[in-house]
Amino acid sequence: MPDLDVVRLLTAKRDGARLDPDAIAALVRAYTDGDVPDYQMAAFLMAAFIRGMDETESAAYTRAMLYSGEVLDLSDVEGTKVDKHSTGGVGDKVSLLLAPLVAACGVPVPMISGRGLGHTGGTLDKLEAIPGFRTDLGVEAYRQQLADIGVVMIGQTAEIAPADKKLYALRDVTGTVESIPLIAASIMSKKLAEGIDALVLDVKAGRGAFMKSTTEARRLAEALVGIGQEFGKPTVALLTRMDAPLGRAVGNGPETAEAIRALHSVDPLGGEIDDLMEVTLALAGEMVHLGGGATSVQHGRQLAEAAVRDGFAWGVMREMVEAQGGDVSVMDDPDALHGAPVATVEAPDAASAGFVTEIDAFEVGLAAVALGAGRAKKEDDVDPKAGYVLLKKPGEAVAPGEPLAHVYASHADQANPERLAAAFSFGESAPAASGMVLDRLDAAGWRSRSASGAGEPAAA
Amino acid sequence: MPDLDVVRLLTAKRDGARLDPDAIAALVRAYTDGDVPDYQMAAFLMAAFIRGMDETESAAYTRAMLYSGEVLDLSDVEGTKVDKHSTGGVGDKVSLLLAPLVAACGVPVPMISGRGLGHTGGTLDKLEAIPGFRTDLGVEAYRQQLADIGVVMIGQTAEIAPADKKLYALRDVTGTVESIPLIAASIMSKKLAEGIDALVLDVKAGRGAFMKSTTEARRLAEALVGIGQEFGKPTVALLTRMDAPLGRAVGNGPETAEAIRALHSVDPLGGEIDDLMEVTLALAGEMVHLGGGATSVQHGRQLAEAAVRDGFAWGVMREMVEAQGGDVSVMDDPDALHGAPVATVEAPDAASAGFVTEIDAFEVGLAAVALGAGRAKKEDDVDPKAGYVLLKKPGEAVAPGEPLAHVYASHADQANPERLAAAFSFGESAPAASGMVLDRLDAAGWRSRSASGAGEPAAA
Repeated sequence: MPDLDVVRLLTAKRDGARLDPDAIAALVRAYTDGDVPDYQMAAFLMAAFIRGMDETESAAYTRAMLYSGEVLDLSDVEGTKVDKHSTGGVGDKVSLLLAPLVAACGVPVPMISGRGLGHTGGTLDKLEAIPGFRTDLGVEAYRQQLADIGVVMIGQTAEIAPADKKLYALRDVTGTVESIPLIAASIMSKKLAEGIDALVLDVKAGRGAFMKSTTEARRLAEALVGIGQEFGKPTVALLTRMDAPLGRAVGNGPETAEAIRALHSVDPLGGEIDDLMEVTLALAGEMVHLGGGATSVQHGRQLAEAAVRDGFAWGVMREMVEAQGGDVSVMDDPDALHGAPVATVEAPDAASAGFVTEIDAFEVGLAAVALGAGRAKKEDDVDPKAGYVLLKKPGEAVAPGEPLAHVYASHADQANPERLAAAFSFGESAPAASGMVLDRLDAAGWRSRSASGAGEPAAA
Repeated sequence: MPDLDVVRLLTAKRDGARLDPDAIAALVRAYTDGDVPDYQMAAFLMAAFIRGMDETESAAYTRAMLYSGEVLDLSDVEGTKVDKHSTGGVGDKVSLLLAPLVAACGVPVPMISGRGLGHTGGTLDKLEAIPGFRTDLGVEAYRQQLADIGVVMIGQTAEIAPADKKLYALRDVTGTVESIPLIAASIMSKKLAEGIDALVLDVKAGRGAFMKSTTEARRLAEALVGIGQEFGKPTVALLTRMDAPLGRAVGNGPETAEAIRALHSVDPLGGEIDDLMEVTLALAGEMVHLGGGATSVQHGRQLAEAAVRDGFAWGVMREMVEAQGGDVSVMDDPDALHGAPVATVEAPDAASAGFVTEIDAFEVGLAAVALGAGRAKKEDDVDPKAGYVLLKKPGEAVAPGEPLAHVYASHADQANPERLAAAFSFGESAPAASGMVLDRLDAAGWRSRSASGAGEPAAA
């Protein structure tokens, strides 16, 4: 590294200076190649965490991670490829129904997802709850399936953004995870490597989200959309609520079953999972619009609603499960993914107040990890059957002794229904109903702050 | 480390929290033992650098480094043991004359010193310019010599503050050197391990010092005196000027020769090295007073002046050189330490203005390193003969072509007199004379800010 004075970079960032983009790129490259040791990179990450990085620095850092590995080129697949990324929440199975739904509207969706860690689940674990489902396709199979059926969902390969993998592991042990520029760069470097043309982000805010406050979630959305712009990829972020679990199912098998049912029931749009469909359709409207399949976001949403209602989205999901080696019988019998409940959580005396007012998504997420549905450490195995189905959601009436939730698990002795019950709060009146989509950000700014009137109407 | 959650400590310090002293102690201990890896400690150092550490945290950090190794017990040596530490400057040979001088006043001085790095020199290198002088005495010889002749000057042993050694090496490569709490803890952990009862600090401010600004130097002095107080050791700091080199000699042999001459000349106190004697006597007054050899700092200074004038200090220095295996002939022939000049620096045309106004100590220090007198890297060897003797100092009249300095070196081809000449500035009038001691800090506060009148009068 004759041209890279690492200590000079460290002292500059330490003292709050803006670093030259080329210097950041050289540092990330040298670290990935093993020429800069962990201890220097750890000092850099801590300085960058505390001092922050501006948009130019973040873009340089993202670009260096992006080009540390393979950047897929899907230009030979017809259409505008659009993906979605969620910052993660409890019960967030949106990707499972959204990807086939958008593909059903004619917009190709190449999706590379991660595994769950901590209180939030991961899309890969949910897909793998389907017996036989393979998420480790090679690049050629990935490209071919996208061309054939318009949707493919796989896990991150070793070739994609190896710098991000190495840096994430270092951040994890150096107290530098929760940095908005570092998180944004990590997300975007992986997504941009997929070969997409546009991206929709579901940035969650609330108790069950990574970002507990709306202010923090807004800052993350701005960082993500800013990087998308720097790379010339149209990017839209929806800010959505994550206080209670999304939908009724939590855990891999239960969530995958719920995703299938959401596309399969007689009247999926008028069912008991309003919040899940509200978020899914809002994201679908954006994706179909960005992908050129609709003249407006509202039009995109209408097309998506139709694709759910006529079962076309369900059909695409079935094709995807089949193409990726999954047992297609689950498409008609989703309950097989979790089996019979091993316990039922009953409403305590406090429920005499009459209504469920809150369900703490963070507590539910932690309870699900303890049940075997998630990972406390990266090396942990997950129990695909483990999880909950909430029979009562905030705003619903309840009486003491009434069932609040079913518990599913491969080992009944881990059920611990008391732990889930503790996540419920009760009150004398139902909380005021509120929309799931809090705000929308694109290159023109936030919808709620936009004075131009040019923004799309609220999807919620 | 079952009880030490390093990531929790890192995130707390990162977010500006004050850490529990026990947690800091456990972290430093675990790092020294190899149970916490470099990358986690690097992240801690960067967070501590940017967020700072308060007095309690600094004391805990210092204590952990202090007790990472051997803490000498000199209680069987009679008297109140007092040492002095300088934050380092160019031409700073004060320790060489001060230690024997204070011992000559009856106060024992056990001194453990370091080597030079960068533009400032180190006391060990200066002592080793004396042929045969050993600085690697064992603990028993150290104790015995202190008891016998009242002064001993050695290098840091591997047993003293090993945590500091390991942490300093890590700070050096992670851009976390220039932190006041970290510097203060590093200095104090080593000094407190020597077995001293009290300490005087020479905190230098100016171009040739580590702290360029008086404000920074004051903060460092406050941190050092604060730690001294936490450990119950009376500590006094003098803030002294370091804009031009101290005295006239720069480089190991030349400086040691100047130190001997300062104690040996017919009228050492009325000579040509006013600034050096002013700083030395101010520090000596404090040390003799702290050591119980005088009723006031002023009285201590008077005793020190007498010990110089009557040659008693020179005699003690001679005893020390002999006891530590050095060639005592240099005490009568100090010029042998550098030999004849290999070049003379002449005043340029700019000197027609009439006066030397400034000599940039930092530039002189760097020029001396290039000449072989110092180290750019830790592994470098030094040339004991290499250095300068300044024939003109700021405020002195000069004409073009007049000699400004002599250059000494083992290899004449490295002389490069132009480089030293560039450190001189000239002007039409002499700069206003100003005292070397800018301020004084003890447990009662700064002299210049003290309204109580209880402080000692200015030594300068």
